Amino acid sequence: MGKNRLEAFSDGVLAIIITIMVLEMKVPESAEIKALIPVFPVFLSYVLSFIYVGIYWNNHHHMLHTTKHVTGFVLWANLHLLFWLSLFPFVTSWMGENNFDHVPTALYGVVLFMAAIAYFTLQKAIIISQGPGSILAKAVGKDRKGKLSTLLYAVAVLVAFFHPWIAGSIYVLVALMWLIPDRRIERTLNVTNY
Amino acid sequence: MGKNRLEAFSDGVLAIIITIMVLEMKVPESAEIKALIPVFPVFLSYVLSFIYVGIYWNNHHHMLHTTKHVTGFVLWANLHLLFWLSLFPFVTSWMGENNFDHVPTALYGVVLFMAAIAYFTLQKAIIISQGPGSILAKAVGKDRKGKLSTLLYAVAVLVAFFHPWIAGSIYVLVALMWLIPDRRIERTLNVTNY
Amino acid sequence: MGKNRLEAFSDGVLAIIITIMVLEMKVPESAEIKALIPVFPVFLSYVLSFIYVGIYWNNHHHMLHTTKHVTGFVLWANLHLLFWLSLFPFVTSWMGENNFDHVPTALYGVVLFMAAIAYFTLQKAIIISQGPGSILAKAVGKDRKGKLSTLLYAVAVLVAFFHPWIAGSIYVLVALMWLIPDRRIERTLNVTNY
Amino acid sequence: MGKNRLEAFSDGVLAIIITIMVLEMKVPESAEIKALIPVFPVFLSYVLSFIYVGIYWNNHHHMLHTTKHVTGFVLWANLHLLFWLSLFPFVTSWMGENNFDHVPTALYGVVLFMAAIAYFTLQKAIIISQGPGSILAKAVGKDRKGKLSTLLYAVAVLVAFFHPWIAGSIYVLVALMWLIPDRRIERTLNVTNY
Repeated sequence: MGKNRLEAFSDGVLAIIITIMVLEMKVPESAEIKALIPVFPVFLSYVLSFIYVGIYWNNHHHMLHTTKHVTGFVLWANLHLLFWLSLFPFVTSWMGENNFDHVPTALYGVVLFMAAIAYFTLQKAIIISQGPGSILAKAVGKDRKGKLSTLLYAVAVLVAFFHPWIAGSIYVLVALMWLIPDRRIERTLNVTNY
Repeated sequence: MGKNRLEAFSDGVLAIIITIMVLEMKVPESAEIKALIPVFPVFLSYVLSFIYVGIYWNNHHHMLHTTKHVTGFVLWANLHLLFWLSLFPFVTSWMGENNFDHVPTALYGVVLFMAAIAYFTLQKAIIISQGPGSILAKAVGKDRKGKLSTLLYAVAVLVAFFHPWIAGSIYVLVALMWLIPDRRIERTLNVTNY
Repeated sequence: MGKNRLEAFSDGVLAIIITIMVLEMKVPESAEIKALIPVFPVFLSYVLSFIYVGIYWNNHHHMLHTTKHVTGFVLWANLHLLFWLSLFPFVTSWMGENNFDHVPTALYGVVLFMAAIAYFTLQKAIIISQGPGSILAKAVGKDRKGKLSTLLYAVAVLVAFFHPWIAGSIYVLVALMWLIPDRRIERTLNVTNY
Repeated sequence: MGKNRLEAFSDGVLAIIITIMVLEMKVPESAEIKALIPVFPVFLSYVLSFIYVGIYWNNHHHMLHTTKHVTGFVLWANLHLLFWLSLFPFVTSWMGENNFDHVPTALYGVVLFMAAIAYFTLQKAIIISQGPGSILAKAVGKDRKGKLSTLLYAVAVLVAFFHPWIAGSIYVLVALMWLIPDRRIERTLNVTNY
């Protein structure tokens, strides 16, 4: 199986996820400016999730760029990743509508954590499919950036039960870590920008 | 007509079906952990339907791989299949929100059954379009796996009126049968993994 | 401008229209079989609209097959067609939820009528872009099938104010006219099946 | 990175935005013709937004046509543009449901303004990626049409607080300016139709 249809399907699902999240921002009935106040935290969580889906789309693109053939394992590992990403609209909305309250903020972190695990699994599946001398294995290296992110999500989930805004700050921090192409940080973390 | 646009359209519809199902998981108003309890059966039925759509996408992909030309019959048989799959969000939500109650669980099976029939029809339409010596006809063989699945859906619909959880277990079982690439089972059932 | 991105965008919009219509079928709260009764007319109008969008996708595909270059006029004529098709979910739902009542059934016909006009405009735009000796002009011929459909929509809109079910039957009849590839009818109507 | 997947992803997001906006037109419960009256302003704002998304899709297409390689800056500038466009359904619905009231009409202009800024940024990112002798830089020229539009959006936002219908008229005017391929206006404004 070629990878084209896998890419097209993943692009479709990611495009829909990123767009339907905005439907969770309920249009206020009143036309006054203060009617936007309760919408604001939902907007903030929408911005955060939009950036995360953008990062996933970007990394997914680069990862599939290194491969040609798609095995059954790769296909299902990809669907598994899309599954966790498809839960973004639900947790984004729940966290935003409850002003970044304890449990919703923790659950947001759980979905980030599971998506990271699913991304690792997909990465592993592609490396296995490429056999020895895998380009992706070489490009990923020790993948310290990926491992650090996953650890930070786990920490944030626990922290969320006590100080949800610290958990939220960790989510922002990890997003920035992937967003800003700071070569110094990358070199420190020994991550090849594949 | 080439098959590219048919594939692209089908991918689009399947990507949307798999993603909008998550909109049926209503975001709870309360931020407490127990507010997730009524969401849980909807989540379970979402997972089941996500896997089914994934299986259909995968099999659809392989089936179209064997063909080049698309006749009018193939085109409408494909739309017929997409129609039944488009009912997944409705029946998934109804079954989940009613805790796998009798009638909704039966209706879920009816849609699975009709989708299986539509898949057979599409398979037949492609085989006819390929004429004698059809690659697909050879690959499908006696299609015992497909026939067994359809039979099991029919049984589950009847069982659902008495023991809906047994019906639900049958749906899970059939999904696993398609998901797990157990060569021994496949050989027993004499199904070529086309 | 090549036509590939125009086709991809149109496929995307049509795939979304055909799929979000199902969201208008509100999931009943009760799990009893009679809870499906009010859903039934919505389901019927969904089936009708699904077939219409399928017919439009099919015809759109064939029409664009005859052309290579996309002018600004073709591009906007295409968006104009997509606009009227995008109103399908609204009118489908209104007609279904009100049991094919007078005004909603008439409005459904208005949208069908406007979509037909938009389709003619797109056809004309492509013929103009192809210049003399246009393949599409030759394939369409006198386009009696298209003109008859448009006339029937107009009649149905008027009839809907008195006997909405007759109007509904006309919509079904026109759909069948495009769906069934009856060569005899086509020859009678002198329409080349481009 | 090639531009194909960027185009496909952008097309997907734009196709979804243009289509889900129609979901904001709430289907009235009553079947009487006067039940459509409150829907009418929402319909008007939907038409306006549909045209704007169409213009963006068209211009986006032409702009990407001039480039081959996609840098990280281009990729994120593109996602930034899609972010502001993804807010169209929200502001369209708020403006329409409140009969083009002061604050919603101003907010609509803010989103138009931010999308225009994001479009400039993407344009700049592509020009930088093309280096000296950029085709896009030459095609855009002084970009008076783009600058005038952005200025008019800013004016409209202020005007909206006093005379929202004048602001609305400005939005319509700018849309027409991009829609009508009037060569005289274009020559006057010294904009190359890239």
